[in-house]
Amino acid sequence: MLDTFPLNRPNTPLLDQIDTPDKLRNLSVDSLTQLAHEVRLWLLYSTAQTGGHFGAGLGVVELTLALHHCLNTPDDFLVWDVGHQCYPHKILTGRKEAMLSMRQAQGLAPFPKPDESPYDAFGTGHSSTSISAALGAALAFRLKGLSHKSVAVIGDGAMTAGMAFEALNHAAHTQADLLVILNDNDMSISRNEGGLATYLANNLKNKTDGKTTAALFEALAFEYTGPIDGHNLSDLIVNLDRVLVAKGPQFLHVITRKGKGYAPAEADPVGFHAISKIDPLTPPNKPTPSPKFCNIFGRWICQKAATDSRIVAITPAMREGSDLVRFSEMFPDRYFDVAIAEQHAVTFAAGLAIKGMKPVVAIYSTFLQRAYDQVIHDVAIQKLDVLFAVDRAGLVGEDGATHAGNYDLAFLRTLPNMTLLTPANEAELVQALEFGYQQSGPVAVRYPRGTAETWGLAVETPAYPEPYIAYQGSKKIALLNFGPLLARAQAVAEALDISVVDMRCVKPLHSEILTDLCRQYATLVTLEDHSLSGGAGSAISEFLHANRMGNKLVCLGIPDEWIEHATREEQLDMCGLSIEHISERILALRNE
Amino acid sequence: MLDTFPLNRPNTPLLDQIDTPDKLRNLSVDSLTQLAHEVRLWLLYSTAQTGGHFGAGLGVVELTLALHHCLNTPDDFLVWDVGHQCYPHKILTGRKEAMLSMRQAQGLAPFPKPDESPYDAFGTGHSSTSISAALGAALAFRLKGLSHKSVAVIGDGAMTAGMAFEALNHAAHTQADLLVILNDNDMSISRNEGGLATYLANNLKNKTDGKTTAALFEALAFEYTGPIDGHNLSDLIVNLDRVLVAKGPQFLHVITRKGKGYAPAEADPVGFHAISKIDPLTPPNKPTPSPKFCNIFGRWICQKAATDSRIVAITPAMREGSDLVRFSEMFPDRYFDVAIAEQHAVTFAAGLAIKGMKPVVAIYSTFLQRAYDQVIHDVAIQKLDVLFAVDRAGLVGEDGATHAGNYDLAFLRTLPNMTLLTPANEAELVQALEFGYQQSGPVAVRYPRGTAETWGLAVETPAYPEPYIAYQGSKKIALLNFGPLLARAQAVAEALDISVVDMRCVKPLHSEILTDLCRQYATLVTLEDHSLSGGAGSAISEFLHANRMGNKLVCLGIPDEWIEHATREEQLDMCGLSIEHISERILALRNE
Repeated sequence: MLDTFPLNRPNTPLLDQIDTPDKLRNLSVDSLTQLAHEVRLWLLYSTAQTGGHFGAGLGVVELTLALHHCLNTPDDFLVWDVGHQCYPHKILTGRKEAMLSMRQAQGLAPFPKPDESPYDAFGTGHSSTSISAALGAALAFRLKGLSHKSVAVIGDGAMTAGMAFEALNHAAHTQADLLVILNDNDMSISRNEGGLATYLANNLKNKTDGKTTAALFEALAFEYTGPIDGHNLSDLIVNLDRVLVAKGPQFLHVITRKGKGYAPAEADPVGFHAISKIDPLTPPNKPTPSPKFCNIFGRWICQKAATDSRIVAITPAMREGSDLVRFSEMFPDRYFDVAIAEQHAVTFAAGLAIKGMKPVVAIYSTFLQRAYDQVIHDVAIQKLDVLFAVDRAGLVGEDGATHAGNYDLAFLRTLPNMTLLTPANEAELVQALEFGYQQSGPVAVRYPRGTAETWGLAVETPAYPEPYIAYQGSKKIALLNFGPLLARAQAVAEALDISVVDMRCVKPLHSEILTDLCRQYATLVTLEDHSLSGGAGSAISEFLHANRMGNKLVCLGIPDEWIEHATREEQLDMCGLSIEHISERILALRNE
Repeated sequence: MLDTFPLNRPNTPLLDQIDTPDKLRNLSVDSLTQLAHEVRLWLLYSTAQTGGHFGAGLGVVELTLALHHCLNTPDDFLVWDVGHQCYPHKILTGRKEAMLSMRQAQGLAPFPKPDESPYDAFGTGHSSTSISAALGAALAFRLKGLSHKSVAVIGDGAMTAGMAFEALNHAAHTQADLLVILNDNDMSISRNEGGLATYLANNLKNKTDGKTTAALFEALAFEYTGPIDGHNLSDLIVNLDRVLVAKGPQFLHVITRKGKGYAPAEADPVGFHAISKIDPLTPPNKPTPSPKFCNIFGRWICQKAATDSRIVAITPAMREGSDLVRFSEMFPDRYFDVAIAEQHAVTFAAGLAIKGMKPVVAIYSTFLQRAYDQVIHDVAIQKLDVLFAVDRAGLVGEDGATHAGNYDLAFLRTLPNMTLLTPANEAELVQALEFGYQQSGPVAVRYPRGTAETWGLAVETPAYPEPYIAYQGSKKIALLNFGPLLARAQAVAEALDISVVDMRCVKPLHSEILTDLCRQYATLVTLEDHSLSGGAGSAISEFLHANRMGNKLVCLGIPDEWIEHATREEQLDMCGLSIEHISERILALRNE
């Protein structure tokens, strides 16, 4: 058992020889056991350098070794549901050294990525997609007459999402040769919620009762094996060898321990879900909290709930990330962690709202994509009072393209009845949430990961969401800011003597003030942390044409491409959203 | 047993007295049996007048009576999953006469609609939302200290969608007093697919084995009752009275027969899922097929699959609607009906594509909303060759706002890697599908419900998707057409001597040709069957500003509001998209 992160390069003599997984196919169980230890050492060492999710990886070291031992990857199709599990897989598939670059610009992605390696069979940034993808591959193999295997490894947390059930249901019908491995650590990111979790947990207590254990999955026409110890290499190999040659859909239930082999993580798997980079002088501990947008939200909802008993909070398994820990403790009856189940989260909120509650759905922008139809049908068409606290909007940094929240304005702004607010800083976030709370009908407040570039407001401002002049220049150019890039807009404006208007709201646009601005400023420049296509700039573009305004319009935002992992600052730079780039664009404009 | 639709107003003396459901709370089982007969008569009579879905309604007549008999609606919360089941409910809740206006402008909606009646507790146009909504209501009642009941009635077809499972899973955790009634008619719209369907079907064969029957739902911590005969009023009432007072989540399994009481529908429930309005001179039979956009797609995919063995077709339970019947017969191995499971459908396609197949996902625009995240993550980010045949795009007529496909361009156009094609007529649909098939990466081809306004192409045209001049006028105004409104664009253009350019493709825009057009025409008018906000006109608006084109731009499309049910023609008229309205807008423009 390890109890500290190795901060110096560990000695891994056996692992150093494994540059491709075929090298481990003839190893004995003893050697694989040694290799498991070395993988753990390397995993802790490299994650200390880069930050990242290591708890899930520690839990699947033996499973990863056993799978690559028994399978013929990359011909066989092996999908890791939610990439967090994939670090040992990356270490064992030729990317040991590259692990030191993970989450950095041009470095390894923190999720499986087919562009990166042929061993990454399918990209899995969001959870619960693996069974569908593996079933597709299994049927492709069958149609092509190939005998390759297809395997999905899915955590118990990811099993709560409906699409995993959809895939199990369809797999049964196809009778595909497909292996689904349930990596059951009684834990998703937050504590696992719901009937299935209870069911699985009860099974663990009744391991001898094979009949009861198998009922659910056999009901879905899978052949069930398990539960087996996911840290026992012999058991894993014997069982994998058997189920991999069995016909029809197979279900292997493996019990693992998140954080296995690293004492502090075994003791507190939620706290040690992921870490930030470790500075050698600081003890390897949980990151110290600093006031972020999500913390402001967390405080606001606690205050509001204390005065209004109609307020309820809903999270799809993101209690910590959305900062609802305190709320869950203060108002346990009004706190609903629905598990990874975004579709249900939104319609459940609609059911609460139509009976007079004031539900607040705290959800990351990227995960709101999972509940789009429910936002349309169950909330927007019915004009229900649901407040969406859309966290991690815009570029999210190290998690890369799969977790970016770059599309929410586009996919929400096209819907009637929606109000879309883009606070620029913490003070505005509170104002926006307050406005959303008082507003009738659905409101989405979008805010980014991390802390704001400025705290508070620079000037006395009107009531939210009225736009206001955040900096008054003398030139006939106005920067229209939507969201958290306000501070850089102000810096540019001061340098170039142009004006900044903090727009605060994408829908509805304040047409009177906007019309005035069009008359005062020959050139408008929009600034947003969102895709240019369909975003806030696009809304302004529509407005200008619809109102026959001949202003020159330049839109600054995220170009029409996937922005890979890097720091958020680097990503903003890549998108031309640094102070320097914004200044250059505006200077070029003045010379046109 | 009825065997014809009553074409004259039937005699319904008992039903005539039931203007609110409290009137039936003291009726005897004998009277309820008489009432059931009268409800069926009225259902068939009214549907013959209006067209609509009557098979599902016939199957739940006794269940509806029993529910309103046992419940205290509208205080109790009763949700009908997928509105198709709700016709008897509407007849019994004060809307008997209004049924004759169903699906018509200003008439009744074909789905439950809270705006329409306090007895319509929750709007349900799409399937599988009822358990989430009812759970939300149940918890709202609990938090408010109210003892009202909350009930969801869900068909077995709707149970395959993941969000139903998400809701069951969460309900168990909350221990809410919630009743879920499974209306099991062994049938969704198309034949039900998958492990759950097989499981339920097997249960019916083993009714005596209560233990096996209950396993799946008891695994999810619901108390299971059933299966019971859904046409036996005494059994229904006795069981409802019991489960409605039981504590914790209850599951009542009811067996019904779709089309019950109308002989032709019992014999062919798929063919008699819905009917069109009956002309008294025509026998009440299935609508005769006419060549629609979906039929052109159905033919194209059969031809293509005959020459390319990589082609596979995927439908989420819409075999008939998407016209994949012939494909399913010709290529059974390459045909996948995944059941109502849109998320899985898309990721399953991605799994097939990444292993070298050429999947075609045939899906209605409104249902693609359910799989948005999967389009982003599993297809677009990975740039996989998945062809989306996006049917029922734009206004869909009688099914109303919930089934409109007015947002696909906005939510897809913001995604990198997507190609978005908008064929104007049947000939272009074939060209677009062919182009999509040959194109690398994801392609969506959107086409509307019904037939095109023109067949074939008016002039010799360049290869798809290059824009072409569909009518050359002499004025400096060009109508840029995106999609199926081309014929009316041409009619307007001829009358006003302006030009029409059939644009054919929303993404990528053909910037060279578009730049030329900007130089030739002072004024551009876009025309699309899509939301103005974020649609094709919005893309042109962005283009003009980004390229410093000072053209006047007018965008014609669907305004920022929900368009209620009416004929498609009436809806287009409401949106200002009739020939007269388009002409007026353009004439007004010339006078500006």
